[in-house]
Amino acid sequence: MRVRSIGFSTTLCTYLRNPRTLHLFISTRRYSHFDMSVVNKSVHPFDKSRLDALLNRRFFYAPAFEIYGGVAGLYDYGPPGSSLQANIMAEWRKHFIIEDHMLELDTTIMTPAPVFETSGHVARFADWMVKDTKTGDVLRADHLVKNVLEARLAGDREARGLAAQPKDDEKDKKRKKKAKTVVVQLADEVVKEFESILAQLDNYSGPEIGELCRKYDIRNPDTDNEVGEPQQFNLMFASSIGPTGQHPGYLRPETAQGHFLNFSRLLEFNNGRVPFASAQIGRSFRNEISPRAGLLRVREFTMGEIEHFVDPEDKSHEKFREVRDTVLSLLDRHVQVSGSTQITQMTIGEAVDKGIVANETLGYFLVRINLFLIKIGINPKRLRFRQHMANEMAHYAADCWDAEIENATGWTECVGCADRAAYDLSVHSARTGQPLVVRQALKEPIVTEREVPEFNKKVVGKTYGRDAGLLQKAVGEMDESQLTKLKGELAQGQATISAEGKEFAITPNLLTIERKTFKQSIREFTPNVIEPSFGFGRILYTLLEHSFWCREQDIERGVLSLPPVVAPTKVLIVPLSAKEEFNPLVQEVSTKLRKAGIFSRVDDSNTSIGKRYARNDELGTPFGVTLDFASVQNRTMTLRERDTTDQLIGPIDDVITVLTELVQGIIDWPAACKRLPAYDGVQAVD
Amino acid sequence: MRVRSIGFSTTLCTYLRNPRTLHLFISTRRYSHFDMSVVNKSVHPFDKSRLDALLNRRFFYAPAFEIYGGVAGLYDYGPPGSSLQANIMAEWRKHFIIEDHMLELDTTIMTPAPVFETSGHVARFADWMVKDTKTGDVLRADHLVKNVLEARLAGDREARGLAAQPKDDEKDKKRKKKAKTVVVQLADEVVKEFESILAQLDNYSGPEIGELCRKYDIRNPDTDNEVGEPQQFNLMFASSIGPTGQHPGYLRPETAQGHFLNFSRLLEFNNGRVPFASAQIGRSFRNEISPRAGLLRVREFTMGEIEHFVDPEDKSHEKFREVRDTVLSLLDRHVQVSGSTQITQMTIGEAVDKGIVANETLGYFLVRINLFLIKIGINPKRLRFRQHMANEMAHYAADCWDAEIENATGWTECVGCADRAAYDLSVHSARTGQPLVVRQALKEPIVTEREVPEFNKKVVGKTYGRDAGLLQKAVGEMDESQLTKLKGELAQGQATISAEGKEFAITPNLLTIERKTFKQSIREFTPNVIEPSFGFGRILYTLLEHSFWCREQDIERGVLSLPPVVAPTKVLIVPLSAKEEFNPLVQEVSTKLRKAGIFSRVDDSNTSIGKRYARNDELGTPFGVTLDFASVQNRTMTLRERDTTDQLIGPIDDVITVLTELVQGIIDWPAACKRLPAYDGVQAVD
Repeated sequence: MRVRSIGFSTTLCTYLRNPRTLHLFISTRRYSHFDMSVVNKSVHPFDKSRLDALLNRRFFYAPAFEIYGGVAGLYDYGPPGSSLQANIMAEWRKHFIIEDHMLELDTTIMTPAPVFETSGHVARFADWMVKDTKTGDVLRADHLVKNVLEARLAGDREARGLAAQPKDDEKDKKRKKKAKTVVVQLADEVVKEFESILAQLDNYSGPEIGELCRKYDIRNPDTDNEVGEPQQFNLMFASSIGPTGQHPGYLRPETAQGHFLNFSRLLEFNNGRVPFASAQIGRSFRNEISPRAGLLRVREFTMGEIEHFVDPEDKSHEKFREVRDTVLSLLDRHVQVSGSTQITQMTIGEAVDKGIVANETLGYFLVRINLFLIKIGINPKRLRFRQHMANEMAHYAADCWDAEIENATGWTECVGCADRAAYDLSVHSARTGQPLVVRQALKEPIVTEREVPEFNKKVVGKTYGRDAGLLQKAVGEMDESQLTKLKGELAQGQATISAEGKEFAITPNLLTIERKTFKQSIREFTPNVIEPSFGFGRILYTLLEHSFWCREQDIERGVLSLPPVVAPTKVLIVPLSAKEEFNPLVQEVSTKLRKAGIFSRVDDSNTSIGKRYARNDELGTPFGVTLDFASVQNRTMTLRERDTTDQLIGPIDDVITVLTELVQGIIDWPAACKRLPAYDGVQAVD
Repeated sequence: MRVRSIGFSTTLCTYLRNPRTLHLFISTRRYSHFDMSVVNKSVHPFDKSRLDALLNRRFFYAPAFEIYGGVAGLYDYGPPGSSLQANIMAEWRKHFIIEDHMLELDTTIMTPAPVFETSGHVARFADWMVKDTKTGDVLRADHLVKNVLEARLAGDREARGLAAQPKDDEKDKKRKKKAKTVVVQLADEVVKEFESILAQLDNYSGPEIGELCRKYDIRNPDTDNEVGEPQQFNLMFASSIGPTGQHPGYLRPETAQGHFLNFSRLLEFNNGRVPFASAQIGRSFRNEISPRAGLLRVREFTMGEIEHFVDPEDKSHEKFREVRDTVLSLLDRHVQVSGSTQITQMTIGEAVDKGIVANETLGYFLVRINLFLIKIGINPKRLRFRQHMANEMAHYAADCWDAEIENATGWTECVGCADRAAYDLSVHSARTGQPLVVRQALKEPIVTEREVPEFNKKVVGKTYGRDAGLLQKAVGEMDESQLTKLKGELAQGQATISAEGKEFAITPNLLTIERKTFKQSIREFTPNVIEPSFGFGRILYTLLEHSFWCREQDIERGVLSLPPVVAPTKVLIVPLSAKEEFNPLVQEVSTKLRKAGIFSRVDDSNTSIGKRYARNDELGTPFGVTLDFASVQNRTMTLRERDTTDQLIGPIDDVITVLTELVQGIIDWPAACKRLPAYDGVQAVD
């Protein structure tokens, strides 16, 4: 992350005193190292139900098949949501694929069963579920434990006279179908026990969760019934391919296998060289047990995955030195296992040097992920990297870190970044018999010497007949030191070798041992894979939370302070009325903006200009321009900024120039204020 | 389609004499009305096997799960294919969504069964298949008839001494597993019969295809065994949602239902007004019976769909007058039913006026589709619009036209454009009880007068007791003229009414009939839907065929003449060698191009510059710049055009300026030749 040294101007300082203008200032990428928490403490406390209502009303997204009663965990994106998602993905493509010359792929979702049998998904891609012993309702086992223990801790806090956390308010609990909070004080050591269990919940196996349920009498909070033993439920959607029903298939739960299966083609496309990365944006499917958390846990989602193929003996990264001074918020596995969730601020250079992060390539990607999330508007103070604990990590993984983003439901994994070692390529290669390897011409051949035994086969055959094979096998299995010893004995004239209870006397006419030189000019290896994996729905939702606030003077007036780079519409064009005399100007401004590559929308509806702006604050539109009678007469136009509601005025073409630079992030609002005079016209405008 | 009038310069005329430079000239969108067929007749005849080899070798796309033996009908796109597809979709988004202010959606693939039960897909989204009576092999019934009859006609042509068509060559037949051509002359009337069947094959039902098989002894060409009766096979992939297996679901076979289910939200987003259109790009799935035609028939594909919601009483389009003079190639249903495939050139204005195309909105979209396809590089001479015949069209559709693109396998539907009437919204509304209607405030209320009967209920009850209901019902069901007659009789003092065999004497104290005025200020209606639906894989493949040719001097040197707007890479940067002294210049050029929004790639491999260019001709890269020692010394750079292999030279910044205008389509190559001097340097460069 680049940190600039800036001499603050007086205008800028005034600007920064207002929490909302500060927010704008921070959300422009150039100043992303500022403290966003100031914003989040401002004026009205965050109210999730208001945000959810806004997102639903303005059709950012909505439950899919709503008129059929909906299906849990399936959502449709409406116009502003689709556009926000498309902009996030476009920035992802630029930030990762273009910037680091990755090879883009678009692979198949419907996958024949053998692929996921090999990858281990058929056997292991499962969550633990428990059944209510009376109703048969199905619950996800770890979520049950989490809900119940958190509720008990909340009851304990209340009993001790500590305020309930804001996120535990009645409304929210209902919405999330959480366990009821019963006000009962717990013993101090029980509190510690619960906190420790929660800190490492991802570390428990299914049977261990079953034990927890029995030990702490954890029941289905909806019915108060006991639950049965945890059982595994495979999360892949099954289907079958072709008309005969003979070819079982699954919908992919991740795009990764599509990269691995095409490895040889990708390697060839890259002229046989590693490291290189492939990247793909695509839909994946997970048949979640009982999804209840909006976009944070869904059954169908769009993800972005990168597979960076690297020499297992050299996981350095050529651009690591450019990023090594970047400070990240880290939560490593040792801290978690100790029962804490204390974050450490550390440069990635130090983290790799100390072995906290396994290697430079993994470290490089953590920094790139951090930068991307901040660029699109995630609050850096609510972003951390959490390392997987031993049991949580796939057995083959060398290291794994999740980028977690804090939101009303807690910390949520939004990006995973794992070192999958050589696992995937190895298993597919073993199953199919296709070599998935890199063959590298060595710059300098590796020259090795070793002792090579050579039998005089005729003589050995004559001497030992059928047992000759036994003898040859025994010698063939000797290591270097045994051969050297044998060579020494032969030099003395004779040696004895035992094999399967038989003794063989050996003389130099039977066996010679010579030191020979070997030259290896090709090195063959299975590359390791570093895999950053993004869930766009989760990123989109947390971004919306981080961007949402309400105007001080009116809590009903919600604003989404989305950065211009991802905002669905960059500029709203507001003619004073729908009268025809404004048409040519509206056309002109719209065309000029389009030529500058800026996506604008016209709102010529009947309501007041203020209402039209308020409506677009809800959609996160960062800028607006008003065309009125003065525009027709003098060719001037006002320019309004969403977060401050400040307005500037100037000749149409000047405003378009300033606007273009604002949208492209070349200048910020304070700089724009220096370029154009403030507008203090009719108050009705806002 | 805009047609410009151009005064040709002499340079331009020279340029047009070369078929390949002409091709370039045509493929730039400004001159897309030129005759592309000139190009397709040029030098080497089109060889599909060469194109297929190129696409496979350079990883445009490849069979998915190849190392597992592949699965028919599933393909993965590699780097150039993904990029080409992404560029086609970006242009689609601009051309349709942005240009016509459509509302973008991103809806769910996994769909609960009731949705497709309602839409009719569960009952009717099926193809007819036949089974080989001995091996049980499954074949698609209509494809079987087509293959066998076409093979017999080819045998007949050969027997009559007419040359076999180039596409029937031995290699191609094998690849497509076509029926064997047996050289047997057929009776003239049989030839006519076969031709007529083929022209309207899409018009036959399953049982009718079964009859054809029996009548003409059509057998499985692979085994020569008879086939059984055609059976329906539903093409949707089935799965189930949630852990209990109680909720059956299907993968959507089209994105359309996602639009319809969200209709009310979309309407609200559009402030309650029609017409408006929603648009969506997304993956869909069809479990094809036995896909064998590469990207032309696949089981998983990316499609773009538009649903334009319109007042059923007014299907005019506000922009129709802008397009009405555009000439399209039309093949209407009457021509097909008569057994012919003769194309008519006609303006869309005339087609709509004559009722050949059902309405203006449908006509507007046919023109926009035509323009889009030509813009991305489809040869307009190999593009036609074919109207669906009666049996082929969905029962609810008012009209339907397919944009078909000619390729080595014949004419292939790549875009469908249907008027689906009010079918979808009506059935979903009926099933769910949710109103999916537009409520429109009438500008002028509709005032109607009608006769209103009013009984004196007390008196009627007293007079007729239990039969009063019968009488009231009979009067209530009377139409306007009957009421008027009754009113006249009552004015005379008395009337008689018969109902269910009973007679009722009526007097004015029992019943009065008065003329009343009614005022209706809201009109409520279910909008109709015009649906253009694009299959991007088919468009991509046919585009690749239309773009492919080989250099005259060397048939091994394939070229893809993709227009810059869709080419995966716009500019190749070729440093003379990988020596470090070129690095700063390579960096500079690459950065300047990126700032101009142009995606370039560097090829600093060890091979000759000529080979590097040839390799990139295969990828369709339209322009290349070479950096050599002269560049380091004089800051000059050569610019090479792919199709002509002509080279220009100039100062680096001048070349970048010209290049930017070329890529953006502001100038064409002849214009560039006027701006920069020709380079006649070292021949090795090409």
